[in-house]
Amino acid sequence: MSDRVGVIMNGVTGRMGYRQHLVRSVLAIRAQGGVTLSDGSRVQVEPILVGRRDAAVREIAERHDIQRWTTDLDTALADPSAQVYFDAQLTSARGAAVAAAIRAGKHVYAEKPVTSTAAEAVELATMAKSAGVKHGVVHDKLFLPGLIKLRRLVDGGFFGRILSVRGEFGYWVFEGDRQPSQRPSWNYRLADGGGITLDMFCHWSYVLENLIGRVRAVTAKAVTHIPDRWDERGERYATTADDAAYAIFELDDDVIAQINSSWCVRVDRDELVEFQVDGTEGSAVAGLRSCRVQHRSMTPKPVWNPDVPTAEEFRKQWAPVPDNDEFDNGFKVQWEQFVRHVLGDSPHEYDFFAGARGIALAECGLRSSAEGRRIEVPEIAP
Amino acid sequence: MSDRVGVIMNGVTGRMGYRQHLVRSVLAIRAQGGVTLSDGSRVQVEPILVGRRDAAVREIAERHDIQRWTTDLDTALADPSAQVYFDAQLTSARGAAVAAAIRAGKHVYAEKPVTSTAAEAVELATMAKSAGVKHGVVHDKLFLPGLIKLRRLVDGGFFGRILSVRGEFGYWVFEGDRQPSQRPSWNYRLADGGGITLDMFCHWSYVLENLIGRVRAVTAKAVTHIPDRWDERGERYATTADDAAYAIFELDDDVIAQINSSWCVRVDRDELVEFQVDGTEGSAVAGLRSCRVQHRSMTPKPVWNPDVPTAEEFRKQWAPVPDNDEFDNGFKVQWEQFVRHVLGDSPHEYDFFAGARGIALAECGLRSSAEGRRIEVPEIAP
Amino acid sequence: MSDRVGVIMNGVTGRMGYRQHLVRSVLAIRAQGGVTLSDGSRVQVEPILVGRRDAAVREIAERHDIQRWTTDLDTALADPSAQVYFDAQLTSARGAAVAAAIRAGKHVYAEKPVTSTAAEAVELATMAKSAGVKHGVVHDKLFLPGLIKLRRLVDGGFFGRILSVRGEFGYWVFEGDRQPSQRPSWNYRLADGGGITLDMFCHWSYVLENLIGRVRAVTAKAVTHIPDRWDERGERYATTADDAAYAIFELDDDVIAQINSSWCVRVDRDELVEFQVDGTEGSAVAGLRSCRVQHRSMTPKPVWNPDVPTAEEFRKQWAPVPDNDEFDNGFKVQWEQFVRHVLGDSPHEYDFFAGARGIALAECGLRSSAEGRRIEVPEIAP
Amino acid sequence: MSDRVGVIMNGVTGRMGYRQHLVRSVLAIRAQGGVTLSDGSRVQVEPILVGRRDAAVREIAERHDIQRWTTDLDTALADPSAQVYFDAQLTSARGAAVAAAIRAGKHVYAEKPVTSTAAEAVELATMAKSAGVKHGVVHDKLFLPGLIKLRRLVDGGFFGRILSVRGEFGYWVFEGDRQPSQRPSWNYRLADGGGITLDMFCHWSYVLENLIGRVRAVTAKAVTHIPDRWDERGERYATTADDAAYAIFELDDDVIAQINSSWCVRVDRDELVEFQVDGTEGSAVAGLRSCRVQHRSMTPKPVWNPDVPTAEEFRKQWAPVPDNDEFDNGFKVQWEQFVRHVLGDSPHEYDFFAGARGIALAECGLRSSAEGRRIEVPEIAP
Repeated sequence: MSDRVGVIMNGVTGRMGYRQHLVRSVLAIRAQGGVTLSDGSRVQVEPILVGRRDAAVREIAERHDIQRWTTDLDTALADPSAQVYFDAQLTSARGAAVAAAIRAGKHVYAEKPVTSTAAEAVELATMAKSAGVKHGVVHDKLFLPGLIKLRRLVDGGFFGRILSVRGEFGYWVFEGDRQPSQRPSWNYRLADGGGITLDMFCHWSYVLENLIGRVRAVTAKAVTHIPDRWDERGERYATTADDAAYAIFELDDDVIAQINSSWCVRVDRDELVEFQVDGTEGSAVAGLRSCRVQHRSMTPKPVWNPDVPTAEEFRKQWAPVPDNDEFDNGFKVQWEQFVRHVLGDSPHEYDFFAGARGIALAECGLRSSAEGRRIEVPEIAP
Repeated sequence: MSDRVGVIMNGVTGRMGYRQHLVRSVLAIRAQGGVTLSDGSRVQVEPILVGRRDAAVREIAERHDIQRWTTDLDTALADPSAQVYFDAQLTSARGAAVAAAIRAGKHVYAEKPVTSTAAEAVELATMAKSAGVKHGVVHDKLFLPGLIKLRRLVDGGFFGRILSVRGEFGYWVFEGDRQPSQRPSWNYRLADGGGITLDMFCHWSYVLENLIGRVRAVTAKAVTHIPDRWDERGERYATTADDAAYAIFELDDDVIAQINSSWCVRVDRDELVEFQVDGTEGSAVAGLRSCRVQHRSMTPKPVWNPDVPTAEEFRKQWAPVPDNDEFDNGFKVQWEQFVRHVLGDSPHEYDFFAGARGIALAECGLRSSAEGRRIEVPEIAP
Repeated sequence: MSDRVGVIMNGVTGRMGYRQHLVRSVLAIRAQGGVTLSDGSRVQVEPILVGRRDAAVREIAERHDIQRWTTDLDTALADPSAQVYFDAQLTSARGAAVAAAIRAGKHVYAEKPVTSTAAEAVELATMAKSAGVKHGVVHDKLFLPGLIKLRRLVDGGFFGRILSVRGEFGYWVFEGDRQPSQRPSWNYRLADGGGITLDMFCHWSYVLENLIGRVRAVTAKAVTHIPDRWDERGERYATTADDAAYAIFELDDDVIAQINSSWCVRVDRDELVEFQVDGTEGSAVAGLRSCRVQHRSMTPKPVWNPDVPTAEEFRKQWAPVPDNDEFDNGFKVQWEQFVRHVLGDSPHEYDFFAGARGIALAECGLRSSAEGRRIEVPEIAP
Repeated sequence: MSDRVGVIMNGVTGRMGYRQHLVRSVLAIRAQGGVTLSDGSRVQVEPILVGRRDAAVREIAERHDIQRWTTDLDTALADPSAQVYFDAQLTSARGAAVAAAIRAGKHVYAEKPVTSTAAEAVELATMAKSAGVKHGVVHDKLFLPGLIKLRRLVDGGFFGRILSVRGEFGYWVFEGDRQPSQRPSWNYRLADGGGITLDMFCHWSYVLENLIGRVRAVTAKAVTHIPDRWDERGERYATTADDAAYAIFELDDDVIAQINSSWCVRVDRDELVEFQVDGTEGSAVAGLRSCRVQHRSMTPKPVWNPDVPTAEEFRKQWAPVPDNDEFDNGFKVQWEQFVRHVLGDSPHEYDFFAGARGIALAECGLRSSAEGRRIEVPEIAP
């Protein structure tokens, strides 16, 4: 096995591609001497940058002392020393580029969503499978401390039988008139791929299926609470995309996950997203960073008597889950996993089919809302 | 106008009827010298007790020095000095007794639910309307401090345009094996009138319509998370009624109210029930006792960046709404309102039609869950 | 089955016998209408007082309106309406009286220790067994809230596999010179039945065997730390009994229970006795009243590095176990259990054999200390 | 007297040797201008590094500007300017090197344990004594703030007559399956020198004998609570070494020290190790950092009455012992003491005989556990 893996990185001039994937992942791995395999040996990574704007790519390459870069994707794909193609371009450009990489025999790793529709994503996944190349999608949230600790609880059987999940995501996104908005205006235009359902249901899909179970049906109400906003230039525009989605997901083993996503809610939580998981033996509340538990042994026995003020301080009856670990950058950890996967050293569950399931969930959610009925999520798997 | 109102009270041997309606309401009003009308004059109330068990009624009458009591409802209804009939019997017995009172020309006031089905409740309401008697149902929760303060915010225009409501009700009800359960076992048997949807949706109906707007459609998922429980004698039984209901209510003016009700959830809240109301100008979180606000002027502008821990303490960015008042017992306040209503001195929104709407909401919720679709709530009004 | 149980109570002029057994147990049961059986019926208890001092017994009988009392035990035992004999006399007088009661065909219930030696206790137990009468010993500590909550954790499988118990009992007993002692001087004289091993190992025996497992071997060091004390009259005397015992108990399933008992220790605990139980899945610290837990999910991962001060606040990483119940007086609860046992309505594990095991454990502990070796506890069972 | 002391340092490429002995002790002493003697004069220290790996030793030497270093021990020992030989190698390599140093006429100072068995340690001690060279073993814990303050209390007569010591050491070492273990796997394998008795009894030996008195007999129970663990590579292995030791030590003057050491206990203490010392006049609880006292004058007089909840808050009846000093690094302080000792300027109690006593205590503890009896610790002294 070669001790070097060439990685074509397309789209690293964007913020996420540059900071998270190039600097904090691939260059950080290079600086630490490579990826450590299960047998203790190390494999170094070698980035090959691809971008449309010559000056921008050159500048990044020089700043980080990266020898190989190009503005021509085909040139890069023709390089036999590159085993992996990574894509962090705009979603609309991703499908064609990834398909070209698969045809060139490269293993493919991509930012989410892989494509704009579930159907296209399944097509790419099937193509990669037929070509015998490895494929993966970024699922970085799972590597954040709060969800790692939640996963540890699930794996350790903490919950007994899991009954339900509550999720609350969101914050107030300013309209842009009196204060500038903290999100781009395309988020609020359907024609531009906006909408909170499309944005967040992919996340709920992989969070739920990796922590609790596959989503089998969805009932959702997607609405546009704020009809007018002001764009980056201060111009008023009519919003067309949903800015809140209220959803009830049905998971394997009759688990219910009720999750609200909203850009029109004020935050009465510790974090911008929080999940409460309730099970027969205990419950947990996890955000991206922290995680708290209440075991059955600590569970109070309140009596519902509205005529008497509650003497108990319910919030204080939870205990923090300690880190007991140092958590590395989630993007980097997933890069290391994917490289090991490419080298046949470890599995990697977050493949293009998983990515397609996320997009499908968003599509089903929107259809449920439009048709006023529960929608069963189609089975998508290799 | 007479300065005395005779009140037939049927069912005061039960806990609620005795403590809340007789002792803390009617006797407390009598002790304070009666109900004060808008012109400053006072009208005294005179209870006439009715009950099935002679010894029990007599004992209560003697303890509280109440002259008139009987075990025969017809005798009581024949008394011309009694203008009001109040009923706190078991739900199954209520319909017939209230109908008899209406036929006897009495104004009628009843515990909730007025009857077991919405159809019966509408029938009674229509009957009362035809008979020209006043009718009212207990809506005591609205008179609790938290909801009074929330109402004050609504009335003062605090929220701007209201967008959404989140409600979370519930706590962990022990199964009864290792620790005795804190709720009766009939709550978990469908045949005995159990189920959290039937129990709580009546409440959500009047809370929502009095604070925010009428409920026009409901999408709900009612489930039975815990299949086995142990009853009062320690015997295991299979549960048949729903112990959790996840609901999305659509209200007037496109307001969405997402409310979860559960006996299988651990409490990470300040109170056993909490409502968050979000509007364009501000938000509030209210329980039965307390209420906190975040006005637009205090609203933070977080950026969703999972790679950086949140430095903000969101929970501390809310400010308490002060009482600025002394809140009387909710049951008593509503009794005073109903007596004034009977005397033509004030309106009383919480009539039998409102009671019927609550029952109808529960019925629609269960149907939505069974059929997997959104159900429009029928119009029920005089 | 008769609806009355006559109970001969011998030794109620003493503090424990009077307050705990007569007033708070038997008279409290009488006041509440008797003992409730599993079929819902009630059986009343009727005390018959026996004591040596005529005036003292008469005074108690009159104060509490008790009709039957005597200074002659045989007279009482001849009463056919008395099914139960209870003994709270001095230990030295108990054996003969209990034996007489067994011969008279009475069920026997006794304060602990049943007798001064294990051999005598076994003899009484065997005698009661042959006579076919029920026999029980007071084990009231098990009914205290802290140990009930600990038992609840054990029954609920909280600990996973239990590994070890730590117990710390004791406080500083003043010597009696500068401040009067808070314990009687006979406690410190061997010839008078003194010694902390004899006093406390009976307790550890039933606490351990009822909560965790039978004690199979003991290694102990019993010492007399304070050689001189001052008695009730202010006279100095040489102590001859042990005032501290350091013990390692080996229980079923390789559980180790290390328990220190001392009258020469200052209290750095929440309660005068505390037990820490450690298991694979969680740990608990229980006193007589409170109980705190640390589940595996909350367990920190400290690193032993003496050169860096610990930043963690370990004590705050435990959470209280809520009561979730109202706890009745432990003596009364055990009386009700014994009466039900006598009537064939429930088992009663705390019989004379259990009492004998407690005394045997103390005897083995003292022998271990004297001989400097581990002693296996003999099997004592029906 | 020369104003320079040459110090051969063998084993400073390891973590402890490098950080504690070289950087924080010898180099720190050099930087401060040397060791101050009792007459106010100063003696400078000159390190001579010895190590097996040329590159590693050279790198350290260059980083810290140390002129003399070598990979050949004999060369170093032949240097007449080096009076002291220090050894921080692996225990298995220490004996031979120290013996060579003694033969070369050097004073010897060593990390603990000096050797793997007490017999070898006694042999080295006797050899050093015959050769007339000074010998010392690291006892750094005694120089930590908590134990310094405890020593201050002992020296000041705070305790009156000391009666007993309680010690509790330990924390939960994760098994390595769901969370990686925080200790190396060899700790749990007997063949690799593992076991908590061997690890910790050396510490208890010098702590006890320096603070309270010599250990004369030990009764211990060493057990393996956790039978399976997962190693550094995630592989399951069967543990063979003891992971908990429950011990009763008998000290001079009939003092009892009961000390538990465990890697299977959750921490309900302020520090990972705590000692409680009880004496006739007062008690103290000391960890490595803090120390709290309860003097006789502050001692409460609780009464053991399980039927009444304790109203007293015992933990608040202790008062902290203030530092009243700035505590230097313990390793450095001991180095200064040893250098003064070498120069005849001060005694040094922590010699090879003391080191041998620590190893002997662990050996006796294991034998006591295996044979089920109290073992008298052999006298080991010059």
